[in-house]
Amino acid sequence: MPTKADLQRLRSLKEKKHRESLGLFVVEGEKVVAELLAAKFPFTEIYATPAWSRADFSPPSGTLQRFIALTPAEMARASHFPAPSSVLAVGPLTRTLLAPGTLDRGLTLALDGVQDAGNVGTLLRIADWFALDRVVLSPDCADLFSQKVINASMGSFARVPAHTADLASALAGLFPGTPVLGCDLAGEDVHILPALRDAVIVIGSEGRGLSPAVAVHVTRRITIPRYGTAESLNAGVAAAIVCDNLRRRAGVSQA
Amino acid sequence: MPTKADLQRLRSLKEKKHRESLGLFVVEGEKVVAELLAAKFPFTEIYATPAWSRADFSPPSGTLQRFIALTPAEMARASHFPAPSSVLAVGPLTRTLLAPGTLDRGLTLALDGVQDAGNVGTLLRIADWFALDRVVLSPDCADLFSQKVINASMGSFARVPAHTADLASALAGLFPGTPVLGCDLAGEDVHILPALRDAVIVIGSEGRGLSPAVAVHVTRRITIPRYGTAESLNAGVAAAIVCDNLRRRAGVSQA
Repeated sequence: MPTKADLQRLRSLKEKKHRESLGLFVVEGEKVVAELLAAKFPFTEIYATPAWSRADFSPPSGTLQRFIALTPAEMARASHFPAPSSVLAVGPLTRTLLAPGTLDRGLTLALDGVQDAGNVGTLLRIADWFALDRVVLSPDCADLFSQKVINASMGSFARVPAHTADLASALAGLFPGTPVLGCDLAGEDVHILPALRDAVIVIGSEGRGLSPAVAVHVTRRITIPRYGTAESLNAGVAAAIVCDNLRRRAGVSQA
Repeated sequence: MPTKADLQRLRSLKEKKHRESLGLFVVEGEKVVAELLAAKFPFTEIYATPAWSRADFSPPSGTLQRFIALTPAEMARASHFPAPSSVLAVGPLTRTLLAPGTLDRGLTLALDGVQDAGNVGTLLRIADWFALDRVVLSPDCADLFSQKVINASMGSFARVPAHTADLASALAGLFPGTPVLGCDLAGEDVHILPALRDAVIVIGSEGRGLSPAVAVHVTRRITIPRYGTAESLNAGVAAAIVCDNLRRRAGVSQA
């Protein structure tokens, strides 16, 4: 039986400051909860109304501390949405530090001030599709633990290692020679980029592009050839095209 | 001096049924109005408050019938948004019929039930970037003349020829041999697709994929190679990767 304080605590997690102080975040909805359970996400609490279809549910082993039935009225008080769903799950908000040298190995997608939560989620999904090794978010990106980011990632939130870090410092600490790729209208043609096993791809905000402190660390400016008249592509589309070409070139080099 | 009926008419254009019956649509905001003016869009009416920066404004030649100053209070009554901007423009809602044989020539992006307005706008922008010859929308796509579609297209709305048509009939009328490309998890690798000068790329809705009536017309199933674990890519990202590869291969064949 949930207390009034329980419901208030769940609702308070809508705000970043409460997520940070409690070290917890919330996801709601049958689809996203099922996606994260399938990815073995270590939820600590699950709240469900009788409408929740728990056919495929097996509790996450070892981590679940509470599994509580709510009435629809209680769910409405806990939920972050005007139209609550039948299930709400709570997970630990963990931020993994970026150990020195991490970015020198494998492929990293680095997001510099991407403030649109939908874009951040889409970028996580792209990193997952192309099996990038990690995503690094600058502190001024949309919060990784907001429901909008998690929902837009379509489950990739639970599968892609993601870090928050000061990008300029992280890039300054790279081993010399690790390529840092930035999209630009006057760079190398992405179609003839060499195969790169280790690289950081930096993606700026749609409105402002890369911040000056990050832009100085770009060592390879790459261009997606434009055939028509649009001024730009959106951040997710540009990142996906770069990843598709990098993976294609890596395949070619192995052949 | 606008009448009360003028302001009500402008506001009514928020709804598709009123746009269709009056044959008009509205865009609001300095950025989108400037983009469409730069693309020589034939606006018929422009309404602006004193805050509108008209530094670069030259009225569209021949088409502008009204150019009326509004007070901020009047703009608030005409606007479709809770926070109105300084300019509102009205244009003719024109639907160009798809002449027989049109889809046999050049590259077409065909949207089958793409209901998210942001996705439709992004797909117009992609078609513009890759200089596709046209976009065809099935009648159950998000309305081309909604502000959300137009805003998400970042001006491409005014540059890409767009048609609304029954896709299954349009595809049934194709010249035999015109390739119809559909994305699929078990098709030809998009990286080794041959150069295609004429093709229709069909994109389904994110939730449901292609409708059965459209799917039967797909003649080449193509796959974007997946390296990781995401289940899918979003519609805009998938379309962009297909277009990038088609254009790259066409470049290769010309070399």
